[in-house]
Parts: sequence; structure tokens; C-alpha cells
Amino acid sequence: MSDLFKPISENLQSTPTSQTNPYGPNPADFLSNVGSFQLIESTLREGEQFANAFFSTETKIEIAKALDDFGVDYIELTSPVASEQSRRDCEAICKLGLKAKILTHIRCHMDDARVAVETGVDGVDVVIGTSQFLRKFSHGKDMNYIAQSAIEVIEFVKSKGIEIRFSSEDSFRSDLVDLLNIYRTVDKIGVNRVGIADTVGCANPRQVYELVRTLKSVVNCDIECHFHNDTGCAIANAYTALEGGAKLIDVSVLGIGERNGITPLGGLMARMIAADRDYVLSKYKVHKLRDIENLVAEAVQVNIPFNNPITGFCAFTHKAGIHAKAILANPSTYEILSPADFGLTRYIHFANRLTGWNAIKSRVDQLNLHLTDEQCKEVTNKIKKLGDVRQLNIDDVDSIIKDFHADVSTPLVKPVSGLPKVPHILEGLDESEEKRLKQ
Amino acid sequence: MSDLFKPISENLQSTPTSQTNPYGPNPADFLSNVGSFQLIESTLREGEQFANAFFSTETKIEIAKALDDFGVDYIELTSPVASEQSRRDCEAICKLGLKAKILTHIRCHMDDARVAVETGVDGVDVVIGTSQFLRKFSHGKDMNYIAQSAIEVIEFVKSKGIEIRFSSEDSFRSDLVDLLNIYRTVDKIGVNRVGIADTVGCANPRQVYELVRTLKSVVNCDIECHFHNDTGCAIANAYTALEGGAKLIDVSVLGIGERNGITPLGGLMARMIAADRDYVLSKYKVHKLRDIENLVAEAVQVNIPFNNPITGFCAFTHKAGIHAKAILANPSTYEILSPADFGLTRYIHFANRLTGWNAIKSRVDQLNLHLTDEQCKEVTNKIKKLGDVRQLNIDDVDSIIKDFHADVSTPLVKPVSGLPKVPHILEGLDESEEKRLKQ
Repeated sequence: MSDLFKPISENLQSTPTSQTNPYGPNPADFLSNVGSFQLIESTLREGEQFANAFFSTETKIEIAKALDDFGVDYIELTSPVASEQSRRDCEAICKLGLKAKILTHIRCHMDDARVAVETGVDGVDVVIGTSQFLRKFSHGKDMNYIAQSAIEVIEFVKSKGIEIRFSSEDSFRSDLVDLLNIYRTVDKIGVNRVGIADTVGCANPRQVYELVRTLKSVVNCDIECHFHNDTGCAIANAYTALEGGAKLIDVSVLGIGERNGITPLGGLMARMIAADRDYVLSKYKVHKLRDIENLVAEAVQVNIPFNNPITGFCAFTHKAGIHAKAILANPSTYEILSPADFGLTRYIHFANRLTGWNAIKSRVDQLNLHLTDEQCKEVTNKIKKLGDVRQLNIDDVDSIIKDFHADVSTPLVKPVSGLPKVPHILEGLDESEEKRLKQ
Repeated sequence: MSDLFKPISENLQSTPTSQTNPYGPNPADFLSNVGSFQLIESTLREGEQFANAFFSTETKIEIAKALDDFGVDYIELTSPVASEQSRRDCEAICKLGLKAKILTHIRCHMDDARVAVETGVDGVDVVIGTSQFLRKFSHGKDMNYIAQSAIEVIEFVKSKGIEIRFSSEDSFRSDLVDLLNIYRTVDKIGVNRVGIADTVGCANPRQVYELVRTLKSVVNCDIECHFHNDTGCAIANAYTALEGGAKLIDVSVLGIGERNGITPLGGLMARMIAADRDYVLSKYKVHKLRDIENLVAEAVQVNIPFNNPITGFCAFTHKAGIHAKAILANPSTYEILSPADFGLTRYIHFANRLTGWNAIKSRVDQLNLHLTDEQCKEVTNKIKKLGDVRQLNIDDVDSIIKDFHADVSTPLVKPVSGLPKVPHILEGLDESEEKRLKQ
């Protein structure tokens, strides 16, 4: 099958270079971090809020080690005040000596902060709801109270010599002036970064770009973004946030989290590779993506979605005849992502009625048979006819090709009329299918 | 369970109105069609290019009727020249007398056009590759040849009195001047709409916005957009295209199509409802979404992805204590989409170690028991402790609550010391779990 599975690298010379890559960073975005972003991996925090998640200590450690090996910059853990075991697990992961920095995620409250700083984490992510909704229905506090709590918690955490992030929650439904006020306040007292969170998963990309750009003009610290995926924009919003000047993106494996989750690690890798392949490959072991996704999928008992970017079963499968023709000539025609980058292979689906003669010719070559282009077109028509009657598999196609080849190679014994001899193909057909094929 | 499943409509009064909805159309986009878009549903064309798709005539008709009932504006079918059965199926669907307009999708070639116009379709979607890649490796034609073919095909289709769309393929890797030239040419000879296609699935939202805005200044006809999802941006790109002035979006059920597919119908509905709920609900029967997804998922033998917008099993499940508290007070705190719009219900996940006392209090009320807030906090701590040891189910929590209630209601028989009596809970624990719980 070597012809159908050529590594794309052979053809990379003919793809646009990074200077002319239309999917690369926009030259107009002078604040862009598309080529210099960092990942805050939150499978062990946001992901634990996924409906199916119950991680034992052993599983948490296995996931943390895999993420560290992958190359994520930060690993975020459930608050140590969520439960006693959560606190112990946090301590255990801090003791692993990983390259990634370990964070924990707490409410903006001294009770939580005092416990968090004792766990051994490299930093604390503080969050508080700032929207009218959360202020009314969650904690019931006003912006002055929020600012006072934030200052107290931030100064306490900083006094321990570890990193501190301050994030609003439900940022896009918060009053812009309130938001900018509190971000400027916490920036001045020296947080490492501020966070924007689309907690309800409804922000759209240009809205994200505007808010990040505005915030970037108000604070000096880094900006981190957290996007839920309720309306399917979590990857795009993350990308647009980086264009606007955000530096860090929260992700989780397969996007697991509250409701239908957040920006998925794999999907964001796909997005970022399209924009800056060199940066991503230099930093992250993307060929380990599939293993990590399988590990987490098993831990939370879900299947990898059929349409998952990169690792979905058909992400590199090409079917329509017109696509297959071009892909065979040059994979870059219909692929920007190279399956080889992820330790995967491409597949040309030729056993169906949409197939074209280029794909069939390629299969004929693989079978080490010799047919002219005209003959390939003829056998393709036979395959399409059977494909009209029922779903085909590769054996069906191979049998039709081999019988056709035998017929054209030994003209003396060729039947005078009627269908070509493919009895073992027709055996699978019921009466009505046979009738339709003969029509 | 009535308390945990309150319809969101009760609370809609307190959500921002459409004037102040931060997720609504951007007032700066005077060309925006966010509140006036149309759907070209391509499950029976793009979707047939999905690896697993083999639609019998009966299945095609069932899907077409379901989509028509849902309210899609157009239904696009596989080219009648793909195979003889494809042609017959096209004719059969045209004869159903659906409200939706029926389109078929062909190469920019008179051979295809002559067959297409005889099928009874309401319109023909013509496509040709315009990028350097497709011009070199697919059809091998130059832009002059493309323009000549386009004019011939368009005038022929128009002469039959049916709609015609001209689309480039791989638009974002095509030369901008070439693109604008050919779009202006076909606009002048009177196409109904021009199409932009992100064939390789790598465009990003702001890039889409720019191209649509630019094209909108060159042509008078409508703009249709087609986005593949290789880098997870197909929904966001569709939304941003509408903001920029595109009018029609290609979708398929669950996004099925070549590779990992295109903009999914359900995901786009989620996105558009967040922006303009009134428009979407007035036009599309979104409560039938789940049935249509199940129909197509069964036909192509895939599972609904666990993280699917709207219909994923956990799309309306809330878990973390802080989320549950606010959701119980007002669902809009963590939900913009209302599950009731889709015939679905919300679920508060309270049987886990991240639970909070508000969620448990709500469960206590459901069980018709009476505990003070302090007692609810106490029993919550017991539940969190067991949740640290193993995965909980609702029965576990209910047993702990009932035993706790019995203990506090009959103080005379309360055990003097030790754990509360929950023998049937502990039965499920092995020795090591029991030891950890006692610790």
C-alpha cells in the first residue's frame, strides 16, 4: 500500500513557506502570540468537572506525567479545598519533579489561598465571578468587595514567592469598565497574568479579539484565556485571542470539562500547526497526542469523537474521486496538516461509488497489475455500478480489478457477452440487488 | 426531580435582552447577516463523501424529508454524474415536492451541467479549483480557461430558468486578484450567488471576515460559504462569514463530509441561537435536532460525539459545586442556551467529590426531607469524603442523606461515636477503600 501512504514530507517543498502561508500569523497583528503561545493544561482541574470524570491518584499521576512529556507549559489541578483527597493529590503531583509548572485553581478567598500555598504548587490561579449574573446568583459580592479580596489574596500568594493569576469569570457578560478597573488594579500589585474566561461558551472570535486587544492596552502582565465550547467556537476563540495578544490558553485533553467542555488540546494543536508548524513541533510532542487522548478517553469512559481533529478515525481519509486524484498527485492539495507529524497515515477511500479512475489506477498499481488508463476508466465504471447497489469493501474492488485484468489479459477465454465474471462478488447480493445491478 | 429540571424560560426575563446581548450581532457590522442567514444542507452531498457514508435511496429520502421538516432552505445532492444511481436518486428527491429548494453540485463542465439540469433540481452549484495547488495537481487549467468554462456553464444553466452558484475551491490559497476577477465576471453575467470554500479546513475567523468583506464590495449577488473542520474552526468561521456579509452557510448533520467534515448543523444552530434566538427559533425546528442527528448517525454508523454541542450527553450537565449553586439560583448564570429549546433537560451532577452544599440541599428538598443549612453542609462533607474514595452514584448520595437524616431526626438512637450508619454504602468498598475512608 506504499503509494497511498506516502509521507507528506516529500511534498512539503511545494507548500507555501511560512512567509507566504495564508494560514499563518496576520502581519497586521503586532501583538500576536500565534508563534509564541503557552499551554495551561487543565485536564486535572477543568477536566475533573466533566460529568464522567473520577480520577484516582494513580490516574492523575499518569495523566500529569504524560502531559509533562508532551511538553505542556503548565498543569492545573483541582482546588485542594474541594476535598481532602484533592489536596493530597495536589501535593503528590507537586512532588513528581515535572518540568511543567504545577498550578492549582481556587476561589478568590483567603481560606482557599492558605491551603493552596502549602501544597507545593508553583502558582495559584484565582478566579471570581464578575458578571451581573454571578455577582447576583453566585457569591453576591460587589466590585469593591471583589477588588479587596483580590488584593488580599494576591499579596498573600506573592509573599510566598509563587506565581499568581487573577481571572474574572463570565468575562463577556461583565461590565467592561468594571473589568478593566479590576485588571488594572491587580496588574499594578504584580500578578503574573490576568485571565479572561468565556464561562458560558458563547463568545465569538471577533468579540474575543476586541476584548483581548483592549485589555492588552491596560495591563502589562500576560493574558490567559479560557473558552468553553457550548457553541463550538472554543478553538477559534483561542486562536483569535492569541492574535489579539493573549499569551496562554487553557486546554484539556479532548476538551473535557463542565458541560461539553473547553478548548481541546488536540484541536488547538491542529489549529496552531496550520499557523506555525515550526513553533509547535519544536515545543510539543504532537506524535504522542493519540496516546494521551486514548489514556484520558479510557479514564473517563468516552470514545474519541468520530470527527475529532487529527485523531478522528477519518481525519485523513479522502473519498470523492476529484479529491483522491489531487491527493495522489500532491497531498498538500487537500491537506495542510501532515498525518506523519502525528504518527498517523493518510487513507484514500476508493471502494465506493464516488471513486474516480485515478484512485483505482493507484490501486491497480498497488496490486502489481498492468492496465492502460482507458482500461482503468472501464473497470472504474464497473466498480461504481456495484457501488450503486451496495456498500463496497476493499476485497470487492480488488476482485473486480483482478477479474477484469484476467479478462483483458486472456482475450481468448473472454465471455462473448454479459457481465464480467465476478461470481464471488455477486454472491453477497440478494435477489433485488442482483436485479438492480443487471438493470 | 422537578427542582433540578426547571425550564429555563422562567428565568429568561432576567437575561439580557437582544439589544444588550453581548453575544448578539456586532452593531459595527452593517453588512451582517447573523440575523438573516440561510442554510444549504449538504448531508446528501458533502455528507456522502464521509468515509462511512453509503446512503440507499430510501435513506436519502428519509433524510431529505427530515431536513425539509426541520426548515433548511436548500438541500444539496451528490452530482448526478457521480454514478447512475446518484442521478436517479436526485430525480426522486426532486419529485418529493419539498419546501426546501433542491440543488445538485457539479464540476464546472458542460458534460456535468447538461445532466444536472435534466434532473429537476431548483438550482446547480458549480465548483472549480482556483488555487495554485488545484490548478496544478487537479484539473491543470489556467484562470482564463476557468473563466471561459464558468461563463459557458452559467449561461447554459440560467437558460433553463434555475438557480446557479459559482464557487471557487480552496479559496484561501487562491490568488486574491484572480479570485475577485472571476467572481466579478460571474456576478456580471448573473449568478444567484458566489461561493467561498475553505476546502482544506485551515482558514481562521478574521481571515474569513476579511475575504468576505472584500468580496462583498465586488459582487452584488449573495455569498455562500463552505468550511471544512480540520482545525476545528468550521462553526466560528461560518459565524464570522455571516458577520462579514455572507448570506448562506453550507452545513451537514453532525458535520459529516470529507475527512473530519464541515460546519455541523447542530453546532451552527447553537452558535446562531446565542446570537439571535428569535430568528433561529422562528425558522428552524431545533427541537427536532436530536432526532435528525440520531437518524444520520445510525445511517453512517457513528456515535454522537460525547462533546457535541447541544446533543452531547453532558451538554447541559453541571458538576462543580460553585456552578451548581449558581445554576440552581438562575440557569442563565452558566447557560446561554436553553435545553428546553431542544426538547432536552438540564442535569445537576451532585454525586461526586466536587459537589457543594447547595446542590445537596436541593437534593434533600427533592427527597422531601428537612435539614438545616448547617446540617446540609455536614452531610455534604460526608458525601465528599466518600467521593474521595470511589466514584459515587445517586443511590449512594441518597443513602447517605437518608441515614444522616434518620440520625439527626432520632437523636436518642444516634451512635455515640464513629461513622454514621451507612452499611449498605460501605458494602461496595473493598478493604483498601474502607481503610482510606476511615483515615
